[in-house]
Amino acid sequence: MPEKIILDCDPGHDDAVAMLLAHGSPEIELLAVTTVMGNQTIEKVTRNTLSVARVIGMDAVPIARGAHRPLVRTIETAPDIHGESGLDGPALPEPAVELDARHAVDLIIDIVMSHPPKTVSLVPTGALTNIAIAVRKEPRLAERVKQVVLMGGGVHVGNWSAVAEFNIIIDPEAAHIVFNEPWPLTMIGLDATHQALATDEVAARIAAVGTAPARFVGELLEFFAHSYKDAQGFDHPPVHDPCAVAYLIDPSLLRVVKAPLDVELTGGLTLGMTVADLRGPAPEGCTTQVALDIDNDRFWALVVDALERIGAVEL
Amino acid sequence: MPEKIILDCDPGHDDAVAMLLAHGSPEIELLAVTTVMGNQTIEKVTRNTLSVARVIGMDAVPIARGAHRPLVRTIETAPDIHGESGLDGPALPEPAVELDARHAVDLIIDIVMSHPPKTVSLVPTGALTNIAIAVRKEPRLAERVKQVVLMGGGVHVGNWSAVAEFNIIIDPEAAHIVFNEPWPLTMIGLDATHQALATDEVAARIAAVGTAPARFVGELLEFFAHSYKDAQGFDHPPVHDPCAVAYLIDPSLLRVVKAPLDVELTGGLTLGMTVADLRGPAPEGCTTQVALDIDNDRFWALVVDALERIGAVEL
Amino acid sequence: MPEKIILDCDPGHDDAVAMLLAHGSPEIELLAVTTVMGNQTIEKVTRNTLSVARVIGMDAVPIARGAHRPLVRTIETAPDIHGESGLDGPALPEPAVELDARHAVDLIIDIVMSHPPKTVSLVPTGALTNIAIAVRKEPRLAERVKQVVLMGGGVHVGNWSAVAEFNIIIDPEAAHIVFNEPWPLTMIGLDATHQALATDEVAARIAAVGTAPARFVGELLEFFAHSYKDAQGFDHPPVHDPCAVAYLIDPSLLRVVKAPLDVELTGGLTLGMTVADLRGPAPEGCTTQVALDIDNDRFWALVVDALERIGAVEL
Amino acid sequence: MPEKIILDCDPGHDDAVAMLLAHGSPEIELLAVTTVMGNQTIEKVTRNTLSVARVIGMDAVPIARGAHRPLVRTIETAPDIHGESGLDGPALPEPAVELDARHAVDLIIDIVMSHPPKTVSLVPTGALTNIAIAVRKEPRLAERVKQVVLMGGGVHVGNWSAVAEFNIIIDPEAAHIVFNEPWPLTMIGLDATHQALATDEVAARIAAVGTAPARFVGELLEFFAHSYKDAQGFDHPPVHDPCAVAYLIDPSLLRVVKAPLDVELTGGLTLGMTVADLRGPAPEGCTTQVALDIDNDRFWALVVDALERIGAVEL
Repeated sequence: MPEKIILDCDPGHDDAVAMLLAHGSPEIELLAVTTVMGNQTIEKVTRNTLSVARVIGMDAVPIARGAHRPLVRTIETAPDIHGESGLDGPALPEPAVELDARHAVDLIIDIVMSHPPKTVSLVPTGALTNIAIAVRKEPRLAERVKQVVLMGGGVHVGNWSAVAEFNIIIDPEAAHIVFNEPWPLTMIGLDATHQALATDEVAARIAAVGTAPARFVGELLEFFAHSYKDAQGFDHPPVHDPCAVAYLIDPSLLRVVKAPLDVELTGGLTLGMTVADLRGPAPEGCTTQVALDIDNDRFWALVVDALERIGAVEL
Repeated sequence: MPEKIILDCDPGHDDAVAMLLAHGSPEIELLAVTTVMGNQTIEKVTRNTLSVARVIGMDAVPIARGAHRPLVRTIETAPDIHGESGLDGPALPEPAVELDARHAVDLIIDIVMSHPPKTVSLVPTGALTNIAIAVRKEPRLAERVKQVVLMGGGVHVGNWSAVAEFNIIIDPEAAHIVFNEPWPLTMIGLDATHQALATDEVAARIAAVGTAPARFVGELLEFFAHSYKDAQGFDHPPVHDPCAVAYLIDPSLLRVVKAPLDVELTGGLTLGMTVADLRGPAPEGCTTQVALDIDNDRFWALVVDALERIGAVEL
Repeated sequence: MPEKIILDCDPGHDDAVAMLLAHGSPEIELLAVTTVMGNQTIEKVTRNTLSVARVIGMDAVPIARGAHRPLVRTIETAPDIHGESGLDGPALPEPAVELDARHAVDLIIDIVMSHPPKTVSLVPTGALTNIAIAVRKEPRLAERVKQVVLMGGGVHVGNWSAVAEFNIIIDPEAAHIVFNEPWPLTMIGLDATHQALATDEVAARIAAVGTAPARFVGELLEFFAHSYKDAQGFDHPPVHDPCAVAYLIDPSLLRVVKAPLDVELTGGLTLGMTVADLRGPAPEGCTTQVALDIDNDRFWALVVDALERIGAVEL
Repeated sequence: MPEKIILDCDPGHDDAVAMLLAHGSPEIELLAVTTVMGNQTIEKVTRNTLSVARVIGMDAVPIARGAHRPLVRTIETAPDIHGESGLDGPALPEPAVELDARHAVDLIIDIVMSHPPKTVSLVPTGALTNIAIAVRKEPRLAERVKQVVLMGGGVHVGNWSAVAEFNIIIDPEAAHIVFNEPWPLTMIGLDATHQALATDEVAARIAAVGTAPARFVGELLEFFAHSYKDAQGFDHPPVHDPCAVAYLIDPSLLRVVKAPLDVELTGGLTLGMTVADLRGPAPEGCTTQVALDIDNDRFWALVVDALERIGAVEL
C-alpha cells in the first residue's frame, strides 16, 4: 500500500524535485501539496507550486497556500540560492489548476482527521510554520499523524550559520513545536542531504529521459549548480528536499539513528541548531531519529524512475 | 454607537466579571466570547465560560473554544489563584447554550473579516495564543481589527516573576506576536489593575444590587480575596480583566501613555516582561500605549451599573 | 569614626564630584581611588582622575589604574555624555602625583585584607569590572569588605536601554558577580539619581563658594547640562555618582528598601537590567537594598560643604 | 629549543598524566604549574598537584593556586569521573614542596611578562578561569604569549551536555574570553581526545616501565577506566589532557584545521558549546584551530617515553 503523504513545501528547486518524485512514485500517494514562505515569499512559492504541478502533469492533487511569515521572527528568504522567482532557471508555465480555497493549515487538519489514525504522513521540506500552527489548532494531529519526515536541520553541519540550517533557523519556534510533539519524527538534515549531489553523471541520466519534465529538471539543476557554487562553494549542488520523499519510498536508502532531537531557541551563536544527543543509545520511548547518510546513487535512480513514469506531459 | 468587541478569555474570576461588564454595558456590543487555556485548562475555562453565560443571561453570544496550550512553552495554570475549577467559590450551573462549532481562531477571523474594516476590537484577557494564531493564519487581521485592548503585562511590576505577569509569561511568544503587529494596541497591565481593588465597600455595593448574578459575583470576589491574600499578600484582590472592558466603555477611566512596547523572550530573569520605553516622548507612528492608573471608584460603578442592567436572571 | 572607603570610578563629570565629596567630607576616609574604563578609555579616565586630584588638592590618596575593558563584552564608552576626554568642559591641569604601581585589583585587595574585617567599604561608580576581578582573585573579600555601595542600575528606569543603566550594561557579567556575592550591597540607581539634579539654584550655590575647585565644578556641570539636554532631553543634569558617597556620609538622605537584586545577562531587550523583586517584604537574610528616592536639597548641601572645606587649592 | 609552557590544570587523572608528560619530555620546558577548580575544589586539585609533583619527582617547578570558582556560574565538579579526592585510585603521598606565594594569575603574568615576547605558551587543561582573569588584568598577555593550546570543547561531540564539554561549560564566560583574544589558539577537544584511549595494550606498555611513577599512572588509569565505563559507557577511558601537551611536543600527532571558534553563552540547549565554522576555508587572519584526530599509538609512545625518562623516583 502506498504511503499517503502531504507535502508541505516552498518551491524552490529541490522542492520541485520533491514534488515530481512524490507524484511519479507508486510507493507514494500524494494527498495534497501545501505551501509555506521560505525560499521565497508565499505568493511566489505558491505560484511556483502551481507551475510545477502543470509541468509534471499533477492536476488532481489539491494545493493550498499557507503561512506568509514565520511565527515570531521576521521573514527571511533565499534569493541567492533560488533566484528572484524562487525557481529561477527554466521558463515557468501559467498554472492550470486553482488553489484549494482552504488555508494550508485547515487542509492539513481536514485530510489527517478524515483519514484513519496513523495513515497519513507529513513531509515538510520548508519552514515548519504550517505544521506548527496546525498541531496547535488541532492537538489531536499529534496522535493521528502516522509520522513526520522532514527535510531540515543538521547535526554536524549548518548552512545558514555555522551550525544551523535554513528551514529551521527561519522559524525556529515552529521547528521547536514540531520537534517536541509526540509523533514519530525523522529529520533528514544536511548530514545526509549534502551527500545527495547532482553530479554531472546525474545530470546526464536525467537528460537521457528526454521528456519536457526531464528538461525542466535539468534546467532547474543547472541554475541550482551555479547558485550553490557561488553562494556556498559546492562543486555540485545538494538536492535536499526529495531526500525526505525518498525515505518514504525506501527507508533503506538512508542511514538513520534514533536520538533525542531538539531545536535551540536562544543561542547567540546557535539559534536554530537542531541538537541531537548522540552520546549513547537513545532512551527508551525516543520518538525522533536523524538521517546521517544517504545512498546517492540509488536516490537519483528513484528520481529518474519517477521522471520516466511521469513521461511526456503536454502543456 | 457601541464598541463591537470579541472577548478572548480564560475564566477565571476576573474574566467572569469582564464578561458581565461587557454583557451589561450598552457601550459594548459583545460579538463573541472565545476561550484560551490559562487560569485553568481549556476544558475547564470553556465550561466556566458557558456557566457564567448562563448566570448572567448571556444566551445569544457565540462562544468558541480555543488553544489548549501555549505556542512553545508547556502549559502552566493558576490553581492557587482561581482554584481547581478555575472559578472556585460559587456553585456553577450547568451550561444552557452550546459551543460554536468553530475553533476560536476561526470564529475570530470570520467575525473580523465579515465586518467592515476597523470596526471590531479584540479584548484578550488571558494568554494571547488565540490572537497570535489568528493573525498568523489570516494576516489581514492586522489591518482589519480596530484595536487590541488587552489585560496583561506590567511596566513596573510583575506577579508571576519579579517583572512578568501571568498572561504574558505563560505564552511569551504569542504575546511577542501580538505586541509586534501594526494594529493599535493598549496594554492594561498590573500598573493599573493592581489599583482595581475589590474593597469591602465595593463588595457592599455589589451585594446591594441584590440579584442572583450579583450574589454570584460576590461569591467570586470572596474566594478571590482569600486566594490573593494567601498567594500574594494582597489585602483586597485586584480584579484585572474587566479593566480592559472598562477602557472600551470609557477610556477616561484610565491614564494611558503612548510608548514602544515589546515582550522579552530570552531573559533568564525577565522572560515574559513587557518592556516599555518610557525614557522620552513616544516616537512618531508609535501604535502601542500602556495604562498606568485607573480610577477605581468609577471603574466599580461601571460594574455595578452592568449588574443592575443585567437584573435578576432566571436559571 | 569616618567611613573608610575605596572609590572605584571612571571620571567622568559626576565621578569628579564624587571624588571631591569624598575628599572634602570628614565623615569619609578615602583610602584609595581606583579607575576603570567606562565613560572613556582607561587611559583617559585615569588621567582625568589624576587631574581632578590636583584640582581638589587630593595629594595623599593612592590612585591605581584598573580594567581596560569589560570582562566579556567589547568596550563601549559615553562620549555623548562626557565628551572626547571623558571630562570635557574645564581645563584639566597636568597631574601632580604618580599612579600607584599596583593594578587597581591588587590595591583593592591589599587595602581590604590589611584592614580589620568589616571596616572598609567599596564605592564603585563605574563598571564593576575591577570589583568583580578582585573578589574572584581574593574570595575572602566577600566576607572582609564592610559593604558595597554602588552607583548603577535602576529598578523602574534605564538610560542606556529602556530598562538598563550604563555602568551595568557595559559589563553585565561583572555586575552579576558583584550583585551575587554575600556582602551587604546598596544600589544607588537611576530611581534616586535622576532626582539628584544640578538645577540653576544648585549651580548658584556652587558658584558662591568662589574658589578654583568650585569654578571647576561649575564648568563641569555646565558641560554636563548641555550634554544631558542634547542626549537624553533632561532640563537639568542628574549627577549620579556622588549620591553613592552621600549615602555613606548620611544614609538618611536616601530612601532605601531591602529587596533581592540580580542582573539580567541574556535578555534580548533587558540585557544588563538590575532586577529587583519588590513584590513583598524581602526574604530573611536578604543582603541587598536599593535606593528609590534622594533628598536633593540636602544632597547638594553636602557637596557645597565639601567644596567649602576643600577651600582654595593652589595649582 | 624546548617549548616553554605553563600548565594550568585541575588534577584530575588525565591532568596528572599531562604533568608527567610535560615533566618527562625534553621537548618541553615546564615553567610552572597553576591550578584551577574543576574536576574538584581548588583545595583538592591543588593538593593533588603537589602530590603528583612528588610522585614524578618534579621538585623545581613553581606551583601556584588559582581560581576557586568560575567567573559567573556557580561551581560544578566531577566526582563521578575523578572521585571524591579528584584523583581517586592510587595512594597520594604528602606534598614535598611548597606552593608559590603568588596567585596563579600573577604567576602566569609574571612569567610571561619576564620572558621575551612569543616565547611562552599557555597550556590550560581545565576551566579557563585563571587565563581569562590574567588577560583581563594584564592585557599585554594577548600579544606576549606565544600560543594557547588548550584541552577543552568539542566540535561534533559533548560530554557534559549533548554538545558541550566539561572544561568549557563549567566556566563558559572565561572560555569566551580566552577564545576571543588575538593569540594563536589551538583547541584540543573531544573530537581528538575521545580517540586517545587507554586500551589494555596501553596499560600493559605502562606497566612494563616498572617504576613507581608508572605504577601510579597504572592505578590512575584503572580508576579512570571504571568511572568512564560507569558514567559515560566508554570501554576504555579517553585520557584528554596530555593530548594538549603532546601537540606541543609533536604537532604532527594531531590533525588540526584552522577555523573560526567561539563559545556559546546563552543557548538553552547549547550553553558552553565550542562553535567551529567549518563550512569553508578559514578566513584570512583566522588565529584559531581545532584538532579533529590524534594518532593514539604515537601519543601513548610519548607518555611511555616520558615515564622512562622520569625513571624511579624515590618518595
